[in-house]
Amino acid sequence: MNITVLGAGTIGQSWVALFLASGHHVVVYDPNPQMESVTKNFILESSSYLAELGYSNSSNMDRLKFVYNAPDAVLGSHFIQESAPEILATKHALYSEIESSLSATAIILSSTSGFTLEALRDGFWDPSRLVIAHPFNPPHLMPLVEIVGHSTTSPKLMAKVKKFYESIGKIPIELKKSIPGHIANRLQAVLWREALHLAAEGVATLDEIDQVIANGPGLRWSIYGPNKIFSLAAGEKGLKGFVDHLGPSFESWWTDAGDVHFDQRVLSLVQQYDQEVTSLDLANMRTSRDALLVKILKLKLTKDLGTSQ
Amino acid sequence: MNITVLGAGTIGQSWVALFLASGHHVVVYDPNPQMESVTKNFILESSSYLAELGYSNSSNMDRLKFVYNAPDAVLGSHFIQESAPEILATKHALYSEIESSLSATAIILSSTSGFTLEALRDGFWDPSRLVIAHPFNPPHLMPLVEIVGHSTTSPKLMAKVKKFYESIGKIPIELKKSIPGHIANRLQAVLWREALHLAAEGVATLDEIDQVIANGPGLRWSIYGPNKIFSLAAGEKGLKGFVDHLGPSFESWWTDAGDVHFDQRVLSLVQQYDQEVTSLDLANMRTSRDALLVKILKLKLTKDLGTSQ
Repeated sequence: MNITVLGAGTIGQSWVALFLASGHHVVVYDPNPQMESVTKNFILESSSYLAELGYSNSSNMDRLKFVYNAPDAVLGSHFIQESAPEILATKHALYSEIESSLSATAIILSSTSGFTLEALRDGFWDPSRLVIAHPFNPPHLMPLVEIVGHSTTSPKLMAKVKKFYESIGKIPIELKKSIPGHIANRLQAVLWREALHLAAEGVATLDEIDQVIANGPGLRWSIYGPNKIFSLAAGEKGLKGFVDHLGPSFESWWTDAGDVHFDQRVLSLVQQYDQEVTSLDLANMRTSRDALLVKILKLKLTKDLGTSQ
Repeated sequence: MNITVLGAGTIGQSWVALFLASGHHVVVYDPNPQMESVTKNFILESSSYLAELGYSNSSNMDRLKFVYNAPDAVLGSHFIQESAPEILATKHALYSEIESSLSATAIILSSTSGFTLEALRDGFWDPSRLVIAHPFNPPHLMPLVEIVGHSTTSPKLMAKVKKFYESIGKIPIELKKSIPGHIANRLQAVLWREALHLAAEGVATLDEIDQVIANGPGLRWSIYGPNKIFSLAAGEKGLKGFVDHLGPSFESWWTDAGDVHFDQRVLSLVQQYDQEVTSLDLANMRTSRDALLVKILKLKLTKDLGTSQ
């Protein structure tokens, strides 16, 4: 199948590597000609991880084509993964540039993390085939894809989109309603707000709070989400039993949770954190993250989780 | 070394299994005589997981003793892990019952998830050796132990507590300040609040939100906390670079985050969730969680994470 990726930044490159490793033909458009070699390097770097996860065509570049003209890139493609910069005017300009070249069955999938479908649709004369398909960084490894259609989007088209992502090993979750930040970013946002609040209150440093998460709640959440985790804690009584027992505690923590902004107080914590982690090798950390992620994903693929998840 | 566990409920049993597998002598007090066989069953069930994690004395019951009198239980113990029910009056009554039997060097470690040290200290005539040491469920497997001392607690004593948990393979994080819910529960609380809000708004079901977490942010948080994850996203620019780029988006999601309560609307979502997951075998899920947790922990133990964490 022909797939187009518009924009070869961090997210676009990752999609290219995944689509290629899944055996598809991929056409990439990026206005910057340097992105061709950057993307090819990324494909080579990520190929062993993708192979470990069972993608068998990892570094086959014969099916990869770079073009420097957006309308040419979409010709004959069924799926177009738009990963342009998060600037609304840029996305709108790109949409109007490609619209007349789209094939009749083309579906445009936007990787946007911050815009709602309503805001994006204005870029199309006929927005009926525009769907949000927001990946989670790094997209070639993370299973989650958040999918958002419009109330007028055909259920058949949404089913096709879901099937497409499932066919390349992803776990697409369809939002029934458009909301800024989708689900995952909103959840990340509230967790980070309380982390910043606790650091601002002097309870612990940002680095210590990271350790709390990675050795506590984060570990469990890599297996089950909070509703399942809390259900397990309550045993036979289910989630309702958990609420009966601990609801009042949670309500008190909600009342007590902090409201922060990126003011001088919080920014100085952020800068202090950057100074503390300067010595850490970010490239090493990224490699460690990806290597461990692949191993955890392999475990999850082979393990019966006792549930559909 | 002699360790006492007061209370053999879910948390207490788990501590007993861990202390025993670490090679210590363990004395357990629980007013309910049935808890002896329940605890012994738990020790047997958990022994293979603990052995897999490198604890070599897993199911040796020779070093285990049950007593039915709290003062007897603490005689000669250096560390007393209090895991009594989360009822303040119960904990206070237990403290006053044991105080005169404590040896001069005994340290009392409370597993409390909900009470602050200030509230607990009232139960002691001399509260100087009472410290919060809150584990994360299931305590025998999860590395995190949140430690809270008082401004008057001796730093030497806190260092001793930290060293003790490190010696049995835990990752103790010391809070510099007492705060209701400590760190991890507060973070769980805000994440769950937004999950309940999104479900109440009809964006997705609680089960779908669980899937978003376990295949998205939760997966990454099992490796690094959010500050490291966001730093990695910004590359050379660090966490400050991430804030410069995405701070405004996060502030808008913070403003938009929901405030929920356990009112009829939310309770009906919870009940609906319980109906959906009725068919799931909770016992299977618990076994799957623990089995996968052990494998992930083993990966993390053997993997260089490129950082101290």
